[in-house]
Formats: sequence, C-alpha cells, structure tokens
Amino acid sequence: MAIISGIRVHDIRFPTSLQADGSDAMNKDGDYSAAYLVLETDSGLRGHGFTFTIGRGNDLCAAAARQRAEPLIGRDVDSLLDDLGAIYRELADDSQLRWLGPEKGVVHLAMAAVMNALWDMAARRAGVPLWRLLVDMTPDQLADAADLRYLSDALTREEAVGILRAAEPGRERRIAELTARGGYPCYTTSAGWLGYSDDKLRALLQEAKDDGHRHFKIKVGADLEEDRRRLRIAREVVGWDAELMIDANQVWDVPQAIDWVNELAEFRPLWIEEPTSPDDVLGHAAIRRAVSPIGVASGEHGMNRVLFKQMFQAEAIDFCQLDSARLASVNEILSVYLMAQKFGVPVCPHAGGVGLCELVQHLSIFDFVAVSASLDKRLTEYVDNLHEHFTDPVVVSNGHYVLPSHPGYSAELHEESIERYEFPTGTYWLERSAEGVLVSR
Amino acid sequence: MAIISGIRVHDIRFPTSLQADGSDAMNKDGDYSAAYLVLETDSGLRGHGFTFTIGRGNDLCAAAARQRAEPLIGRDVDSLLDDLGAIYRELADDSQLRWLGPEKGVVHLAMAAVMNALWDMAARRAGVPLWRLLVDMTPDQLADAADLRYLSDALTREEAVGILRAAEPGRERRIAELTARGGYPCYTTSAGWLGYSDDKLRALLQEAKDDGHRHFKIKVGADLEEDRRRLRIAREVVGWDAELMIDANQVWDVPQAIDWVNELAEFRPLWIEEPTSPDDVLGHAAIRRAVSPIGVASGEHGMNRVLFKQMFQAEAIDFCQLDSARLASVNEILSVYLMAQKFGVPVCPHAGGVGLCELVQHLSIFDFVAVSASLDKRLTEYVDNLHEHFTDPVVVSNGHYVLPSHPGYSAELHEESIERYEFPTGTYWLERSAEGVLVSR
Repeated sequence: MAIISGIRVHDIRFPTSLQADGSDAMNKDGDYSAAYLVLETDSGLRGHGFTFTIGRGNDLCAAAARQRAEPLIGRDVDSLLDDLGAIYRELADDSQLRWLGPEKGVVHLAMAAVMNALWDMAARRAGVPLWRLLVDMTPDQLADAADLRYLSDALTREEAVGILRAAEPGRERRIAELTARGGYPCYTTSAGWLGYSDDKLRALLQEAKDDGHRHFKIKVGADLEEDRRRLRIAREVVGWDAELMIDANQVWDVPQAIDWVNELAEFRPLWIEEPTSPDDVLGHAAIRRAVSPIGVASGEHGMNRVLFKQMFQAEAIDFCQLDSARLASVNEILSVYLMAQKFGVPVCPHAGGVGLCELVQHLSIFDFVAVSASLDKRLTEYVDNLHEHFTDPVVVSNGHYVLPSHPGYSAELHEESIERYEFPTGTYWLERSAEGVLVSR
Repeated sequence: MAIISGIRVHDIRFPTSLQADGSDAMNKDGDYSAAYLVLETDSGLRGHGFTFTIGRGNDLCAAAARQRAEPLIGRDVDSLLDDLGAIYRELADDSQLRWLGPEKGVVHLAMAAVMNALWDMAARRAGVPLWRLLVDMTPDQLADAADLRYLSDALTREEAVGILRAAEPGRERRIAELTARGGYPCYTTSAGWLGYSDDKLRALLQEAKDDGHRHFKIKVGADLEEDRRRLRIAREVVGWDAELMIDANQVWDVPQAIDWVNELAEFRPLWIEEPTSPDDVLGHAAIRRAVSPIGVASGEHGMNRVLFKQMFQAEAIDFCQLDSARLASVNEILSVYLMAQKFGVPVCPHAGGVGLCELVQHLSIFDFVAVSASLDKRLTEYVDNLHEHFTDPVVVSNGHYVLPSHPGYSAELHEESIERYEFPTGTYWLERSAEGVLVSR
C-alpha cells in the first residue's frame, strides 16, 4: 500500500518578456511561469501538475497549491486514484478556501495544479498517456469524475452519460484515424504577437506556412490602422484559402468591440477571440449577434464550468477555448466538453504559455475519440515555445499534434529546468540579480 | 510633501468557528479573518484597509495585498489621494497580476484591501468620515473615480454623471433626514445561523425583536424539514408583520433551488439569498422567474462589476448585495451603485464578517444621499460580532446604523487586537498552540 509521502512546490518563471513573446494588447510583458507541483509517494510513483501564470503572483499560486494539496499527505494512493471525483469534491469543499473564489482566481488555479498532478499520477500508475486513461473509462466512470455541480439546468448526469454512450462505438476506430492522419489538427499563434515587427511577422508566418500550417492567429486591438496593416501583411503571406483568426485579449467594451471587429471584416477572420471581459456572457452574446458571420471565441480566461454553462445557454460563443490549467483539471474540463457537445459548440482549447500544449493534446484527442467524434471546426492552439523544458514535450508535425505515447499527462519538467528557472533562487535568476538586471517582479 | 513610507500587512484571524457564529449550509466552520493593511506616510497620516475571508488562505490575501500595494511606496500622498481613479487604474493594469483573475479571487480581494486603505487615508486627510468625503465630491469627480471599464453597454459615463446630477439637489436635506430618523435602516443576521440550536435561535430572535429590529434572516438549505421547523419558530417569535429573509449560501442547483424555495413559500420570505452559484447570472434569472413573488438576492460573492452588470441586464436579482471587501473598493462599488440605480434595483449591502458593517454604513449613507435618494426596499445587513476590535466601531440603535462621524472609513483595528489575533504569531494563537488546540488551519 503506497501513500502520498510528500509535496514539492516550485515557482518557475521564464524571462519571456525579454523577447516580447506572448505580447498582446492586454499583456505586454508576460514572463511565462508555472506554479509547479510534484506529488511524491513512498512507492516511487509521482504526479506532476501545474497551473500557468505570466509572472508576478506565481508565488501566490504556488503557496495556494501547497495548501490545496496538504490534505493528500499520508493518504492511500490507490484509494485516491481509483476515485478522482471523490478527492476532487473533498478538496473543492474546503469552505474556508472556497470563500476566496469561489471556484475562481488563485485558489482555483491551485486546484488545477493539484488535480492535474493527481491525473498525471493516475495515468502513470496505469502506464498509459492521459488521453488513453480517459478513453478506457466507462461513461459512468467519466460522469463520476466530472464536476456536474450547478450544471443540472443545462446538463443532467443522465445526459452526460448519454453523450458518452453515444460515442462509445468507434472509439478505437477514431484513435486509428487520428494516428493515420498524423495526429490532432492545430493552428499556430507563434507568429502574430503584437510586439513583433512587420518583418518578423512576415517571416514567422511564412515559416509556419512552410511547416504546413493553414490557420494563423494575429493579435489585434491596440490600434486600428496597425491592425489593418498587420492583417494585410498576413493575407499577403498566407493567402485567402488559409484561415486567419484575430485576438483582442479583452481590450474592448462591448460597443467598441462590435465597431472594431466590423472594421476588420474585410480580412475575413474566422473568429474574434476575447473581444471583451471574459466574464461577460451577455456581452459576448451581443457581440456575436453583431459581427456575424465572424465567429466569437473565448475561454482562456473562462474561470469555471458555470461561466461556460452560461456561454452555451446564451449562445454567446462559436468556439470554446477552455484552458487546461485554469479550469480545475479533467474533473471540471469533462463537464465543459460534455456541455459543449450538447450545445453543439466545438472546443478548441487554449494553449501556449508553459506546458499548456503538453496538456491540451490529451484533452483534444479524448474529445474526438470519446465525446464529439468530430473534427469539424476543431483546432487546438499551438505555440512553439518552452517545450524543451518538459521530459515528454509535444511533437507537432505538419500542423498536427502527434499522439503522445508516454505514461502520464506530459506535465513533468526537467529537474535542470527547475534548478535554473525557479524564482528567485534558480541559477538563471541569481545570475540576472548579480548583473543588476531586473526582469519581471 | 508627504510620501507613502511603508506598508504593514497582517493576517488576522478570529476563532469564530468555536461558537458556530457564521455557520450556514455552505460555510460550516468559518474563522472570520481580515487580510489587513496599513499604509504609512512620513507625515503620520495613515490609511487602513482590509479584505475579509473566513480563515485558511487569509495569508494568500495578505501576501497579495502586499504585492498590490508595493507600487505605492515612495509616491506622493497628495497626488495619489487627489486622483484615486488614476491610482486604481494603474494598480489594476498590472497585467501579470491581472492574469490571476482577471478581476476576481485573491488578487481582486487584495485590490479591495489596498484601495480601501487609500480611501480611508483620503477621508482622514480631509478630516471627514468616508461617506462625507464622497458626498462632497462632484458628479464628475465621482465618475472619474468609478471603474466604468466594460460597462458602456449598460452604463455610459454620461449616464453615470446624469444619475449623480439628478440627486445633487437635496443632498444636505437627506443627510438631515437620516440623522433625524436615527440613521440608516438595517436588518440583523445575528440570530439565524444554521449551527445554532432552536432555543438559541428563539432567544436571539426575541432579543433582536426587543432591540427594535423588524427584518430577520434565517439560513436554510441543509435539510428541508429543519428549514420548516426553524422558519416556523421564527414566525412564532417575530410575527407576520416583520420581514423574514432566507439565505441558502449557494448550496442548490437551479432546478433544486426553485423546488426548495417554493416549498418554503408559506413562510412568506421577502427574499431568497444566494440560491445557487454566485456566478450564475442566467440561473438567478431563471430562479427569479420561478419563485416570484419571493425576491432573489445575491452579491456577497459577486466577483466584480461585470458580474453585476449582467445581473441587472438579465433582470436576475431583486436585491443587490454588493460586498465592500470583495469588490475593488469605492472605485468599483460606485459603478455598481450607479448601474443599480439605472436598472431600478435596490442595493442592500452584505455585511457581518470582520468589519464589513464598519465599511458598508458609509456606502449606504452615500447611496441614499447622492445616488438613489430612496430608502424603499433598502436595508443594510448587520451582524453583532467583532466590532470591539475596531477603533471606530459601528453604532446600531433601534434597527439603524447611526451616522459615523470620525474621519476615515472606520477600518482601523486596535493594535491590541492585532497583537492578539495575528495568525499564527499573535498571543491568542500561541496560547492555543501551546494547549495543543488546533482550530482553523
């Protein structure tokens, strides 16, 4: 009988702001960071999980993850992993921590880190990648794991099980289909950051196109004329058969979003992403009605399943961009996938940052194999950044995520990366401090 | 020229769980806590602010408040206090901390603490209580201070100014009116906590009735038969002329809320409070339609102004219970009051906890004097708990908050209370630790 014997928590920060990687109209100087947690057992089995932030405050998430995980110490590993719905509910029911959300912000990001580590451990125990672990669960087991609280007016447990049962036939056939086509389709955001020069934009788009990508995302929203210039360049490079998506990262009020997006309609974007506050369900719905046929996409800041429920009920989004480190891991993400399926909204997960690509590939594969059984309008984000720090990095080839094969949730960082980028005591940050260079913080 | 010379942050926790004070269907064992912050200047002027939590995680809010406040160090006091809208926007625009919300959870609670301290300092500098400081501001000055971002589809700046201008005539007359009637009307929650015995419930209701209260709130939602028994007792004690409110503290899904509340309709509650997830705008709207004429009240967990905007737009609530330590202080609260006025929803602020009564009395007085000019359906919560720790505690008499007269936002804790209840190093907690009594944490 193995027990959880220890928790290690690390505040890991990468100095991405130095290259303007990840710059957009709202987030000009992010230092991509992970509040990273390792659950250790006395049998040697481990679980790795994290939540993603962009710098300052990553220490808050790390501290919160430790508090969230403390009730796991001394617990029997098999009992925990055999019923991940039960331990999720136990941790979520901590009423004192719940007050700090509820189910949002730092304490919820910390729940994501902890439950991600438990799901990683469960997949490692089974000796399979996470997507396979999920695919091998029955509809009832999946519904037991899912957090369906507050959702019954949109999705009952019976409906959840029904959706999963309907997709049971053909699971293995769809795995074979994904394998044959080279993986799960993705689009790239690597080219379009706002802080890049026109030349860099042009070169990166060309490079991505040459690599086989057909979907390209461009950041907008700081200046309308600049947006026009950058989108003109983008269409010149990628042509009119490829898809362009635009992303405003929440800079607009609702009326402004409607006007601005319609001004850019000539570039025929597939979607406008995060046109306003991520909390504004009714605002997204109003924008969607006013900018059609341009789609509305949102979700990377979608705080929890209740927000997504309303996005679906209000017909506010055309594309659901759930985040694997903001929602409380597979337990809550399952519910969002099931609601999306019921309401007919394709899920195109947010990725990039640190390790989000590593996580979402598992979710997208699971969605196709066991929930939606469709690739129509489904594209998972991909950003070519920071993968080298992971022991099982994503492999993207010809515009597809190749199916991961190693056991776990692909969430483990190299120990050397931890030693170098732990903040503020890692060697990288000590060197910068010695040089008097003050980045982030 | 004075500058901000220092920040003191304290994690203050009171062992309220020992008496089941504050117990309800969701929060069974809260230890009322304050992440408390003192801004110090080299002139001796100080500002005191806090956010309220119920125990574990209060350290996260304290740490976040320190991070939020750090940019204030060395800044000119008069420049800051002359334009509290500008410094609010500067702090809120920290994109790295913003990622952790945005505008919700721990980092937003921390913003509340910091801005509460600045507003306290501004009122002290002026030598007046906060409500008077606000009443003395012009409509344009108030609109400058308010956070109107993301609201223009519901409330433009012009509308905000227009509402304030409409209430300008009669400000002084309404202050005199409040003074003459003994203050601002309140209702009490002191009696109805779920963890209290029937005898204690009966005795406390009788006591509150004898003290002049006419509105009484009872916690419900754990067990329908128990709810019936407790409401029967309540009606026996307070009669049918008094108002009863019921509060479920988010325990129900939407369909369950509708069924349960209708089962309790015979007790003629004025409102059902927090029937489901506080994030569920559309759920509240559905419940409201289905339980009428019982009103729906929500807001103590209303995370930010965008949530309240939607509550108003969707006609989801009959009573707006904004929280003075969860919304980002006066800057964001102003916006909610102005929207509430436009949409015709009375604001009945949440209070209780630690020091929330001390804060909300100022807001309610300001609302009557300068925004709504009405007391119709307006009642501010009152809980008789922990006031002795404040240097300028509320005075409630005959069911009214007596107008506070000391300079500031009534947010200052006695130094002896800090020394005794700071966690875990205060004398109270050291004594408990020495006894081996493990409370909270």
